[in-house]
Amino acid sequence: MTECIMQKMTWKEFQSKKDKVLILPVGSTEQHGPHLPLSVDTVIAEKIALKFAKQIDGIVAPSICYGYKSKPLSGGGPLFPGTIDLNGVTLMNIVEDVLEEFIKDGLTKIFILNAHFENEAFILESVDIVSKRHPEVTIIESNWWDVLSQNIIDKVFDIIPFPGWAFEHAAITETSLMMYLAPELVREELMSDENGAAPVPYAKYPIVNGMVPESGVLAPAISSSAEKGKLMTDEAISAFIDIVNKEYR
Amino acid sequence: MTECIMQKMTWKEFQSKKDKVLILPVGSTEQHGPHLPLSVDTVIAEKIALKFAKQIDGIVAPSICYGYKSKPLSGGGPLFPGTIDLNGVTLMNIVEDVLEEFIKDGLTKIFILNAHFENEAFILESVDIVSKRHPEVTIIESNWWDVLSQNIIDKVFDIIPFPGWAFEHAAITETSLMMYLAPELVREELMSDENGAAPVPYAKYPIVNGMVPESGVLAPAISSSAEKGKLMTDEAISAFIDIVNKEYR
Amino acid sequence: MTECIMQKMTWKEFQSKKDKVLILPVGSTEQHGPHLPLSVDTVIAEKIALKFAKQIDGIVAPSICYGYKSKPLSGGGPLFPGTIDLNGVTLMNIVEDVLEEFIKDGLTKIFILNAHFENEAFILESVDIVSKRHPEVTIIESNWWDVLSQNIIDKVFDIIPFPGWAFEHAAITETSLMMYLAPELVREELMSDENGAAPVPYAKYPIVNGMVPESGVLAPAISSSAEKGKLMTDEAISAFIDIVNKEYR
Amino acid sequence: MTECIMQKMTWKEFQSKKDKVLILPVGSTEQHGPHLPLSVDTVIAEKIALKFAKQIDGIVAPSICYGYKSKPLSGGGPLFPGTIDLNGVTLMNIVEDVLEEFIKDGLTKIFILNAHFENEAFILESVDIVSKRHPEVTIIESNWWDVLSQNIIDKVFDIIPFPGWAFEHAAITETSLMMYLAPELVREELMSDENGAAPVPYAKYPIVNGMVPESGVLAPAISSSAEKGKLMTDEAISAFIDIVNKEYR
Amino acid sequence: MTECIMQKMTWKEFQSKKDKVLILPVGSTEQHGPHLPLSVDTVIAEKIALKFAKQIDGIVAPSICYGYKSKPLSGGGPLFPGTIDLNGVTLMNIVEDVLEEFIKDGLTKIFILNAHFENEAFILESVDIVSKRHPEVTIIESNWWDVLSQNIIDKVFDIIPFPGWAFEHAAITETSLMMYLAPELVREELMSDENGAAPVPYAKYPIVNGMVPESGVLAPAISSSAEKGKLMTDEAISAFIDIVNKEYR
Amino acid sequence: MTECIMQKMTWKEFQSKKDKVLILPVGSTEQHGPHLPLSVDTVIAEKIALKFAKQIDGIVAPSICYGYKSKPLSGGGPLFPGTIDLNGVTLMNIVEDVLEEFIKDGLTKIFILNAHFENEAFILESVDIVSKRHPEVTIIESNWWDVLSQNIIDKVFDIIPFPGWAFEHAAITETSLMMYLAPELVREELMSDENGAAPVPYAKYPIVNGMVPESGVLAPAISSSAEKGKLMTDEAISAFIDIVNKEYR
Repeated sequence: MTECIMQKMTWKEFQSKKDKVLILPVGSTEQHGPHLPLSVDTVIAEKIALKFAKQIDGIVAPSICYGYKSKPLSGGGPLFPGTIDLNGVTLMNIVEDVLEEFIKDGLTKIFILNAHFENEAFILESVDIVSKRHPEVTIIESNWWDVLSQNIIDKVFDIIPFPGWAFEHAAITETSLMMYLAPELVREELMSDENGAAPVPYAKYPIVNGMVPESGVLAPAISSSAEKGKLMTDEAISAFIDIVNKEYR
Repeated sequence: MTECIMQKMTWKEFQSKKDKVLILPVGSTEQHGPHLPLSVDTVIAEKIALKFAKQIDGIVAPSICYGYKSKPLSGGGPLFPGTIDLNGVTLMNIVEDVLEEFIKDGLTKIFILNAHFENEAFILESVDIVSKRHPEVTIIESNWWDVLSQNIIDKVFDIIPFPGWAFEHAAITETSLMMYLAPELVREELMSDENGAAPVPYAKYPIVNGMVPESGVLAPAISSSAEKGKLMTDEAISAFIDIVNKEYR
Repeated sequence: MTECIMQKMTWKEFQSKKDKVLILPVGSTEQHGPHLPLSVDTVIAEKIALKFAKQIDGIVAPSICYGYKSKPLSGGGPLFPGTIDLNGVTLMNIVEDVLEEFIKDGLTKIFILNAHFENEAFILESVDIVSKRHPEVTIIESNWWDVLSQNIIDKVFDIIPFPGWAFEHAAITETSLMMYLAPELVREELMSDENGAAPVPYAKYPIVNGMVPESGVLAPAISSSAEKGKLMTDEAISAFIDIVNKEYR
Repeated sequence: MTECIMQKMTWKEFQSKKDKVLILPVGSTEQHGPHLPLSVDTVIAEKIALKFAKQIDGIVAPSICYGYKSKPLSGGGPLFPGTIDLNGVTLMNIVEDVLEEFIKDGLTKIFILNAHFENEAFILESVDIVSKRHPEVTIIESNWWDVLSQNIIDKVFDIIPFPGWAFEHAAITETSLMMYLAPELVREELMSDENGAAPVPYAKYPIVNGMVPESGVLAPAISSSAEKGKLMTDEAISAFIDIVNKEYR
Repeated sequence: MTECIMQKMTWKEFQSKKDKVLILPVGSTEQHGPHLPLSVDTVIAEKIALKFAKQIDGIVAPSICYGYKSKPLSGGGPLFPGTIDLNGVTLMNIVEDVLEEFIKDGLTKIFILNAHFENEAFILESVDIVSKRHPEVTIIESNWWDVLSQNIIDKVFDIIPFPGWAFEHAAITETSLMMYLAPELVREELMSDENGAAPVPYAKYPIVNGMVPESGVLAPAISSSAEKGKLMTDEAISAFIDIVNKEYR
Repeated sequence: MTECIMQKMTWKEFQSKKDKVLILPVGSTEQHGPHLPLSVDTVIAEKIALKFAKQIDGIVAPSICYGYKSKPLSGGGPLFPGTIDLNGVTLMNIVEDVLEEFIKDGLTKIFILNAHFENEAFILESVDIVSKRHPEVTIIESNWWDVLSQNIIDKVFDIIPFPGWAFEHAAITETSLMMYLAPELVREELMSDENGAAPVPYAKYPIVNGMVPESGVLAPAISSSAEKGKLMTDEAISAFIDIVNKEYR
């Protein structure tokens, strides 16, 4: 087993692994309630990426740790201090440049592991643009939530009903993942007991205070546990490996 | 009742209605199977916008009729002839410019009625940018599917199970809406009887042939009817009116 | 004769016509005095395009209905309500993206039919950029006024002297074309009897009120008629057909 | 009389003239036939600007000496060696930045003197953008040809009929102006005796060889003279002074 | 003493420190020879930032870990695998967006700590743009090398002569800093004993192999030590504190 | 010997020299103290380019005479009237477009001669982008100061100690070069006797008055002479010729 973290590799080590799958974690810097740190999305993307990479002898690229704009009903929105948002064009530029560079270095199997809901459309816009220039490279984009089975969802939401993925912000799934992946960053004693946000079928601007709970938590985190975090992590990685086996022949 | 269609108004008529709600339909030019025309998203956005406008004495702005890139698992993807995609930056620029101009003319109640799934992130990026400059203007963005109640969904999917909104492409909901709103553009005899597409929890590039059914239909259109189209149209408009009443005081 | 309007075609119909000439109408949303609607340029472009397409079994693409910035001495300028202007970059992006997509679908004969004076430089900038990438595609850009013969101009300006094309805004030619092509949108009773604008050989910014007549009409519309509209329409189409025969071998 | 050429001023001299009219010459680097240099547009803009500035104690800013893309039927087009074209966005950026900087320095009377036909739309796009931010500044854009009276045109075209301004490329007016303003750069012995170009009422891409005369001259230069150049220069400057007197109170 | 690492803070902790100095580390992902990892610039920026922050109770923002293009004679250039370069526009966009967001959150004392030579011009371009909009915010940009005294430089270059900062790439200073700040990432046994690169007073493109030593090391790393790393770190931090005391009153 | 100044050439003359080295001077419009004009950087670039071109039968392209933003400690900064700065993107666009056009015309040996310190990073960004598309073209970028030997520096700084290149603004080297290259533009009687600026190892924004001497001179100009100007000019040209001989085989 070789080193998987690109930031720890020398250029020669990196060069020797260019036939492997390169995993690019994409996170954010975004409020996650009173009990979780601003780095939740980045930490989850990075930690899952590393476990995934170890199983496939892959490479984990440096994370993109600032993400697209947090929206009220999926991340609490831009008014929380510490939520540091990129414009769409900026995220698109980063993804485009970084993909071009990995491809220039000879990588042909790229897996973008996103952990911030709002990033996806802008990541895919750049993937599309790059892919048209480099059809010989296979680029996959996925995230940890879309690959979970109903079975796992049922286990995680054993007490609290599943509120939909958009509302799973600083709630059971992210809290559990952090309890498993980075327990030192979770302050369980500060979990909010507020009710979550109420969904509305439209977007409204300007974004003002009062659209989401004051805590920034969009659904209850009660019943979170490291065990649930492990369940989700294991299944996500297992699904990612299936994708790798299917798509990168 | 005054004229609602901006394209038919003189500038003086438009000026006299600047305190009204302006509705901006956003569609696409995209394949919709063998039985529906390329303009489905634009037609639906425009026709619902007009009925909606008539009820609130609003203004229907000229439609944005080219939209963001069709994705395989929500629109069939870019490989179908007749699918004419804009880059994200382009759609963002259009929305930004048009909103700025309506605001410059004194409009303060803007309602963006989107009917193309893939447009949303890019529309909202521009709304966000414009809204930061003009916090006195209230901009709403919605679509016809997110406002439908479970009750209506149950009625529409009385025979065929609901495949999720992304897959409702050229399927029961769009076909029924077109049968109600623009029956002359529907060729019922050409409805595909293929099975729909199979969902995958990731995006893969390059986009290649074979990722979706050859017809371009992502879920069955069987059981579509003008009645179902009317049910959805009426409920959508009713929901939009509720939003207008709540948000534009 | 097959369907000519792309928005009414299914993707298979569109595919079957990809060897035909594709006509892209480009208009604007711009004040046209008290007697003509905001959509004049779009309507004229679209209606002439359709008659033209029918004669050559061509395709009429969805119109670009927001155009470049109205200037005082060719369109009345931006201060009239209802004049909704795009920035130059935005119009350039739209034209570039749309052309790229038509070319990707296999079209090789593209005819851009512009009906808004101010659009031209920006349309051609994008045509130039696209054409450098696709020299195998022939792209023509024209408009209805440059192809008219002196003979027709003399007939149209039988009473009122010809004020130059820039000033022919909401005046005899556009009014006559609308009377012929879309009479239901013309309010003859509201034709202004103001004198037109006075030309100046320079541009001045900021644009302020008072640079043009209050009505927005830059030259008299008196003596307009559907017959004159038909004369111009017929000659324009005849000229376009000559261009097509000459340039797309 | 103080120094008028900004490039010769120290910053303190410039500062002392900030209440004066600043003239920004905009030219091009473009073929002008076998008898005129690539700098014709820049030289004419600059030389007329200097004479103009001397009469009003103005400032001549450094010229923009690369211009927008030469078109076949107004400049011979891009295929002639030595025609060095800017993209539209680039020219727009230059004009925008330079205007912003002059305004930041306290200038409020800016006169853009353009001598390259194709530049105008892109200059005005930037003027519009800048002017919206700085409505207190008056910006005029003009050129030497639009201000000439019919009387002068008749004198200049005493032998050869006037072919229209677009075709006056490397022809009588430009040749005469150069004979008056920079005779050392004119090679009269190399004047082409080819016929000029034939107008067509449309633009065609790709641009190919053969659309214009091989010499690059679009209309005859025969009968050019320094006297005619002086006539035009004097009248243009006189017209510019009238504009200044009228618009900068 | 409160938490200094923003990524570990909750949004409430971050909010409580908004009067403090925010330090933004900017690094790169770039080859650093056979003995140092690709993350050298990011690690040095981040580790010094943290020590600095602890002394002033500041905040360390998430690092920008992809940087501007490596140049041959200051970073080995783009041809080494693992050197992942951003375009200038992309880095400018990131810095602009992130600064805007920190300012929106109420931060007024921002210190950009750059550790990648090539980044500087692009960082400062964005700082300039943002600063014009927010003159009330004081933004400092510095790096660890420009603040070192001649005394320290003499101590570090006790054996090897100082080759100039551009050539100090993967050489004594960076190796020593890594030995002190992240010794687990240094492979002393792989230090190259090649001679360094030879300076040339010009830039040449295209960049080709052979412009720099094969190892990617631009000057000898011999005589590096953790002690030297500590000397430089301590002096850099001391200098940064002096800047903070002087500039943020 | 043929004509070297592109602006004086006809297109046919230019065409006949396309195998020669094309030199592109890049300057600025920037304060240079009370004794030197705003055009110093442009004049120096242009005049040295011409002498250089004459020796190698090269071509001097029209100068880029507006440059990137002046910084306080290398050019006095943006607050001096007459300093007209381009944004980074604008300079990048100009360089990119102009290089593309020269290459399109068949030039393969391009030498960018920069005389404004702050331009370099942005020039090279565009050179990099263009060079990736045209690897067959050799593009060199240099300036007059980096090629000077220690011997010449010692001769020039015979009385005043060398303050570093950034501070050599309106000081001995530029004053001497102007005394040699354009003596009519130097006002020796106005040379400031202020002390120069004091270096600081960081950049601070917003840029405010008081960061540099009121005169705009960053180091003493005392002891400047045309002889020193000639020494530097001759050596720079000699070095450039060596580069040409080495790099353009």
